Amino acid sequence: MADPRYTDLVQSLPATVPFVGPEAQERAMGQGFRVRLGANESVFGPSPDAVRAMATAAGDQWMYADPESHDLKAALADHLDVTPAHIVVGEGIDGLLGLLVRLLIGPGDAVVTSAGAYPTFNYHVVGFGGVIHAVPYVDDMEDPESLVAKARDVDAKLIYIANPDNPMGGVHGPDVIAEMIAGLPEGAVLCLDEAYGDFVDDLLPLELTHPRVIRMRTFSKAYGMAGARVGYGLAHPDFVRAFDKVRNHFGMNRASQIGALAALQDQIWLGHVKRDVAIARDRIGAIAAAHGLRALPSATNFVTVDMGGDGDLARAMVAALGKRGVFVRMPFVAPQDRCIRISAGRPAQLDVLEEVFGAALAEAQAAK
Amino acid sequence: MADPRYTDLVQSLPATVPFVGPEAQERAMGQGFRVRLGANESVFGPSPDAVRAMATAAGDQWMYADPESHDLKAALADHLDVTPAHIVVGEGIDGLLGLLVRLLIGPGDAVVTSAGAYPTFNYHVVGFGGVIHAVPYVDDMEDPESLVAKARDVDAKLIYIANPDNPMGGVHGPDVIAEMIAGLPEGAVLCLDEAYGDFVDDLLPLELTHPRVIRMRTFSKAYGMAGARVGYGLAHPDFVRAFDKVRNHFGMNRASQIGALAALQDQIWLGHVKRDVAIARDRIGAIAAAHGLRALPSATNFVTVDMGGDGDLARAMVAALGKRGVFVRMPFVAPQDRCIRISAGRPAQLDVLEEVFGAALAEAQAAK
Repeated sequence: MADPRYTDLVQSLPATVPFVGPEAQERAMGQGFRVRLGANESVFGPSPDAVRAMATAAGDQWMYADPESHDLKAALADHLDVTPAHIVVGEGIDGLLGLLVRLLIGPGDAVVTSAGAYPTFNYHVVGFGGVIHAVPYVDDMEDPESLVAKARDVDAKLIYIANPDNPMGGVHGPDVIAEMIAGLPEGAVLCLDEAYGDFVDDLLPLELTHPRVIRMRTFSKAYGMAGARVGYGLAHPDFVRAFDKVRNHFGMNRASQIGALAALQDQIWLGHVKRDVAIARDRIGAIAAAHGLRALPSATNFVTVDMGGDGDLARAMVAALGKRGVFVRMPFVAPQDRCIRISAGRPAQLDVLEEVFGAALAEAQAAK
Repeated sequence: MADPRYTDLVQSLPATVPFVGPEAQERAMGQGFRVRLGANESVFGPSPDAVRAMATAAGDQWMYADPESHDLKAALADHLDVTPAHIVVGEGIDGLLGLLVRLLIGPGDAVVTSAGAYPTFNYHVVGFGGVIHAVPYVDDMEDPESLVAKARDVDAKLIYIANPDNPMGGVHGPDVIAEMIAGLPEGAVLCLDEAYGDFVDDLLPLELTHPRVIRMRTFSKAYGMAGARVGYGLAHPDFVRAFDKVRNHFGMNRASQIGALAALQDQIWLGHVKRDVAIARDRIGAIAAAHGLRALPSATNFVTVDMGGDGDLARAMVAALGKRGVFVRMPFVAPQDRCIRISAGRPAQLDVLEEVFGAALAEAQAAK
């Protein structure tokens, strides 16, 4: 009996996945990690108010969520000083990136990103048949000028930049992003991924008047709710409305909607998290420095540490830390792959990192 | 400044949505419904074990879910006597239907369903450019013979049938479905939506050897977790693997995965729900009969009541019940739209239904 008749596009797709989860690594190792500092989750967790709200909502999970996310959008609009019509809520930025790509990209359409930027974005672009044109990082930063120039060259329909950047942690100032938007080629949409934007105090103001700029935000990072899958896009109302043509209207989790609303309303908790993250960044930098390694400046809840070698050394270090119970990740593409990336941890977790760092480094260097 | 360059397909899509949520209706009315019996949710809720598991997991929502849903798939495999390789877990059947359509359907590809069957399936088909060929219900049942014959005629790549059926509630016996599968045209995939299958004791056994049959199941109905967004597909492992090319790997909600696992392990609760649903169905049938109306036989957690008129009468009845605080829905397409559809409720909720039914009916009949 013959197989399903998959589309030509699907037949051409690789079976690879963007990331292997830490749980799969744990199953392969036959034991759990002692500390989980690889996925840029917030170990500081959600606001206690959000935890309580989600726990209380557990008994009401028999109801579908409001498909319009009315209350959450209203609260976000109030908090951000925009209108609900400027907001599309979705199942994390990953889900929204998939929809964004689907709205714009068909087979052969050009998309511009940086070599080594967010792999899940590329996964979606490839999944809809787009052609990725990648420009290099410059000084470990995504480079707006090269992105825009390349987009002009290839007539890109979509440009991706993360600011602050993942996996390198740097941030461009608002003036740089404003200039990038001002220079946006006529046919290109700019996806400005601000997943880590809540860690930064001077983001570009939210004007949302440009018809081809969308800014992605999330409750997964600073708000500590990665497992809850709540992200949102901020854009011109016409652009927001386009998502209604393709989104999964009843796709939101009800308890997550309620939890996100509670998290947003606890800005004091967010302040605590930002302070604890800053302390953790300093500590990770100090651990690296104690071993003669340089931590890159970070505007996020992770620190990227230059191992001072090549990708093999960094891979060996990720493996050596993993063996010692510390889950971290690393950039995929050279020259960024000379680094490892460590999420901000609590003091006790960073004690474990500190405790094993030297031995792991020695093993990684010996393996070279 | 010009708009985003949407794909031709997206430009052609209507801005309509499959359903309006009850919350939007409540906002329009300026007051809440007294009882919510319109979305085929389970008012009996999730297993208390599942509620406890989700509440406990709320504090751990800082972690992404396992992208492989390993533990949930292992438990499902054990429960269903298949292997984890036969299972794809996704964000509700709605999410999985979107992926299924994306795998198979491109612009112009033929898809067969029944006129008035699940609108969200059609939404996905249209969203990927598919052409829907709809055959009529026969005696208020989807008709496997017409579906297969039409699929052969139009060289369909995908056939949809829900068994038990939504919105009419009937069920075909396993022999009828087996025959449908045996007669499946060579190029067609059969999507057998068994969202309500947990209410039925004699479903077709799970052989999962056919390369072009996928059976959709969910925790949204009998397990009472619609808001948690956990569905799964059962199919040949090759077919399951294709979903890995397009699914949102980190899209599952962590607490929902844990809750679904707990729900599955509480089959005693499922038994209670089935018993309570059967009692509620009888009660709804009796309320209808007391007003001279006929309830259709139901194998689900809702009862479809023939109003004995046309779509206008049924629409007037839905509105009249809504005004009195009772949220119900109705089929969209004639001749099924002569009916209204009422979800199983608790005794106190059905007391409200009974209390207002006569006045609502009189108002609906007068409005004609």
